[in-house]
Amino acid sequence: MISVVLLGAGNVATHLFKAFNKAIEVSVNQWYSRNLKPLESYKNLVNITDDLTKLQDADLYILAVSDDAVSDISSQLPFENRLVVHTSGSVSMYDIDKKHKRGVFYPLQTFSKDADVDFSQVPLCIEALNNKEDRPILKKLAKAIGSQPHKVNSDQRAALHVAAVFVNNFTNQIYRIAHEITESQGAEFDLLKPLIKETARKLDDLSPFMAQTGPAKRNDKKTLKKHIKALEDQHHKAIYELLTKSIQKTHGSLIRRVNNSNKNN
Amino acid sequence: MISVVLLGAGNVATHLFKAFNKAIEVSVNQWYSRNLKPLESYKNLVNITDDLTKLQDADLYILAVSDDAVSDISSQLPFENRLVVHTSGSVSMYDIDKKHKRGVFYPLQTFSKDADVDFSQVPLCIEALNNKEDRPILKKLAKAIGSQPHKVNSDQRAALHVAAVFVNNFTNQIYRIAHEITESQGAEFDLLKPLIKETARKLDDLSPFMAQTGPAKRNDKKTLKKHIKALEDQHHKAIYELLTKSIQKTHGSLIRRVNNSNKNN
Ligand SMILES: NC(=O)c1ccc[n+]([C@@H]2O[C@H](COP(=O)([O-])OP(=O)(O)OC[C@H]3O[C@@H](n4cnc5c(N)ncnc54)[C@H](OP(=O)(O)O)[C@@H]3O)[C@@H](O)[C@H]2O)c1
Ligand SMILES: NC(=O)c1ccc[n+]([C@@H]2O[C@H](COP(=O)([O-])OP(=O)(O)OC[C@H]3O[C@@H](n4cnc5c(N)ncnc54)[C@H](OP(=O)(O)O)[C@@H]3O)[C@@H](O)[C@H]2O)c1
Repeated sequence: MISVVLLGAGNVATHLFKAFNKAIEVSVNQWYSRNLKPLESYKNLVNITDDLTKLQDADLYILAVSDDAVSDISSQLPFENRLVVHTSGSVSMYDIDKKHKRGVFYPLQTFSKDADVDFSQVPLCIEALNNKEDRPILKKLAKAIGSQPHKVNSDQRAALHVAAVFVNNFTNQIYRIAHEITESQGAEFDLLKPLIKETARKLDDLSPFMAQTGPAKRNDKKTLKKHIKALEDQHHKAIYELLTKSIQKTHGSLIRRVNNSNKNN
Repeated sequence: MISVVLLGAGNVATHLFKAFNKAIEVSVNQWYSRNLKPLESYKNLVNITDDLTKLQDADLYILAVSDDAVSDISSQLPFENRLVVHTSGSVSMYDIDKKHKRGVFYPLQTFSKDADVDFSQVPLCIEALNNKEDRPILKKLAKAIGSQPHKVNSDQRAALHVAAVFVNNFTNQIYRIAHEITESQGAEFDLLKPLIKETARKLDDLSPFMAQTGPAKRNDKKTLKKHIKALEDQHHKAIYELLTKSIQKTHGSLIRRVNNSNKNN
């Protein structure tokens, strides 16, 4: 049995609470939030508090609070030498006050308050200053909620966090632009959804490098020109041009090879 | 029963043949390719030919050939006044020789030769010069292979084709960059796959506008700076900056509103 005190009442804290509450091997001893309102509906399930000085004993304390608050709250905790972890992709483990045993429990997924979370689809990036004693606790906790734990150091976590912005926020913005393009001609964005899913699914079989196709990779100048001309929004054009260049940079030697062999024909 | 003559032996032609061959209401009378080699293994299932002058009768002729070849082949066909369609997202219906009844049968999906295709996940964009007589044939053909037919005019199809480049090629390049970023720090790209899938899946519930989250939308300057600094590749930086700007343009009034309300606090 692992005992936990959870701090914060946002997206991550709420989904972690629900998962911990269901897990047989985890007991949530207490849930802290500076503002008790969002915890009210859970008060029959768990001891709730808005007073840091009244925190109870536990195997670990999880700071699921805004990135900027991690350092502050960790130094306000009225004890030392206990395991304290944060859940952030971009905050250093060393932002946690050094009076504690420190660690990170970063769920690499996007959470929204309303949607249910299937923790089997949430890789847990785990780091601990003390590998021998503390990491096994974090690993066990991840497994208890059905997640796959991964040992990830701070540099790797920072890289994963930036990469997550690309595959989540930037990909979503690409979807948004596709939505604008289709709408501008009265076409249905929904028709693109199977292609969107297949583009993601393909990574089960192929690396993104191997999966690439299309006019940019083929250096199909006629289609590239046609597309640039068809895009009415300057901003869409700029993104089309930069990402086309990016694809050609990635597959550059290939394009040169194809062009040379065309010349030789 | 719809009878078809298929022309071309590439990705699209091959997957269409397999689907038609399985469909009870479709008979493939003949399969043409200028080069018979790729058709050899199908010759027990269908009449194959490399001679355009020997094409048999059918309800429709499907030109599943390279975009550039559509116009040429259509004018070489040794008959007139029959229904001839191409399968391209970017070629005009009017590129088909005007001696024919013309149409388009554009499958909005990415095909590769090896991977099986589930046509229930392939929206079929249908256009016909003659709405009354020809469009119903194309509609019936799409349904016969389990696809959803959609009436799409040329402008809409052009928009869908550009938008498809965004959600398929550009999204895939975003995945590639995420792969480069994680690899550069020895982190595992695979950890991002559940997030990639969830980003696509979320569109079942929310528009891309509503689904957006992250530092660009929040205008979280500290994290944005940290990310830009962490990106070593100039090219990755340029894409980070342009897509961040793009998100802020889309959610601009929101960001201004939040900043103003912060100022008022
Ligand atoms: N959302 C995701 O998809 C996601 C994914 C992976 C990791 N993370 C990380 O998980 C952590 C929490 O994220 P979240 O999405 O759950 O954030 P959130 O929904 O914005 O919730 C933040 C929580 O922190 C509390 N808080 C902020 N400043 C505080 C302070 N000075 N003292 C006490 N409490 C404070 C907030 O309390 P109030 O409500 O009173 O302001 C709120 O309960 C962050 O480190 C984030 O980077 C998030
Ligand atoms: N691949 C996709 O994901 C996809 C999706 C939707 C729509 N489409 C459209 O479907 C069509 C076919 O695409 P594909 O991916 O199947 O292409 P592909 O795999 O490159 O095959 C093209 C076929 O066209 C033949 N061809 C080219 N020029 C010819 C000519 N002058 N005379 C006779 N045959 C010729 C080729 O024959 P050889 O082998 O002898 O060169 C080959 O059989 C294109 O209009 C494309 O835009 C493709």
